[in-house]
Amino acid sequence: MTYCVGMMLNRGILFMSDTRTNSGVDNISIFRKMFHFDVEGDRSITLMTAGNLATTQAVISILQERGKSPEERAPDIERLTSMFQVAQLVGQTLREVISTHDDNGQKASAAFGATILLGGQIKDGEPRLFLIYPEGNFIEASTDTPFFQIGETKYGRPILIRAYDPDMSFEEAMKLLLVSFDSTIKANLSVALPLDYHIYRSDTLSRGLIGRVEADDPYFQEISSGWGVALRDAFSALPAFTFSTDPDPEPTA
Amino acid sequence: MTYCVGMMLNRGILFMSDTRTNSGVDNISIFRKMFHFDVEGDRSITLMTAGNLATTQAVISILQERGKSPEERAPDIERLTSMFQVAQLVGQTLREVISTHDDNGQKASAAFGATILLGGQIKDGEPRLFLIYPEGNFIEASTDTPFFQIGETKYGRPILIRAYDPDMSFEEAMKLLLVSFDSTIKANLSVALPLDYHIYRSDTLSRGLIGRVEADDPYFQEISSGWGVALRDAFSALPAFTFSTDPDPEPTA
Repeated sequence: MTYCVGMMLNRGILFMSDTRTNSGVDNISIFRKMFHFDVEGDRSITLMTAGNLATTQAVISILQERGKSPEERAPDIERLTSMFQVAQLVGQTLREVISTHDDNGQKASAAFGATILLGGQIKDGEPRLFLIYPEGNFIEASTDTPFFQIGETKYGRPILIRAYDPDMSFEEAMKLLLVSFDSTIKANLSVALPLDYHIYRSDTLSRGLIGRVEADDPYFQEISSGWGVALRDAFSALPAFTFSTDPDPEPTA
Repeated sequence: MTYCVGMMLNRGILFMSDTRTNSGVDNISIFRKMFHFDVEGDRSITLMTAGNLATTQAVISILQERGKSPEERAPDIERLTSMFQVAQLVGQTLREVISTHDDNGQKASAAFGATILLGGQIKDGEPRLFLIYPEGNFIEASTDTPFFQIGETKYGRPILIRAYDPDMSFEEAMKLLLVSFDSTIKANLSVALPLDYHIYRSDTLSRGLIGRVEADDPYFQEISSGWGVALRDAFSALPAFTFSTDPDPEPTA
């Protein structure tokens, strides 16, 4: 499993992904799930992947044109003129990789499927965020649905729904995503630190601040323990429930 | 889908279930998912069901011996001498109902599976809580895992993990479950009010307070809106994230 979130803010896009991959619970590894395609002054594009690792690595390699020698590479993803075209390219590549393996005759116990979050900005366009399905089609974030999650989305969703605000600062958005990731990590063994992030500021058209939150990060540990206390305090602050009849009478013979 | 929780407390067991059933999103109904078998002074047993409605209704009807005329009924569930035996009976009945339909030649688009929460107390025994699988086997709650959820379990789990305390009063436990149900209802259309509950107080050996929280219940609405505010306050109270480098520089040419 995996957990990745892409979040549109008024000042840009925040991307965050975990790094755990597993094939069964006894075979876990750390793999990067966030990938960048940047042309300084022209575009900044970020991809995050969930699903079959062989599939997602193949998609990224094809997009990077690893089949060519380094000096011959001129990836389309760095030349297309709109984010919509990039989403079409990524969707088509994803669908082709999946169908190649599905058609290969060999039956696998695990599915080859994968899902991709794609976000960024190309010169003369707006910042945009897409969720790309294994079938190659995709949907785009809007003001009504300003963030996408892929992978293990459920545990970390309630706090996103309640606390998201498009006006929030990057610092607040980082805090929000760390809380959401913490809830997920606490509940699902297949999501784990370290976490990668990329903060893209609108109209910079270049890679923003990228970083990694390690397992021993003191701020993450503060959030993780502090959120438990804060939740319990919030819960205590809610009005008390009262029964119209006594639920706890002494037993009668 | 469905959401049911059975929660062991030091003073008894709290049961809560939603009432929405759906077959597609365009065919929704209200059905009770909580069932009681009581013999005053001898036992109080509560079942909650998730899964295929035809399966769960058949299981309950068989347990109630609806195949017999009312005066001939003497259900085993009201005569067995331990909760473990009751769990075996319920598990066996569930497995038989599912296998009957699976074997009937007709292929259904929906699975016949179901899961059951069983809790209560029989004279000379302790209060006990079981989670029964479609295969008929089951697990029992313990001090390490004092509550079970069935159905749509993920959205409402983080708050249960953080705020549960075996010493809590029934009022506090009701508040906790209503928050957990509210988070689930907000995120999944197939879980909805009204909610049924049963509060069993240890060693009473008779049915405790049962009730239904309706959609227009003022306390539930207070919890639902109050929890959003409380969560945002809790989130604000967490220490702020700071970047080691400025994430939000002015764009450079």
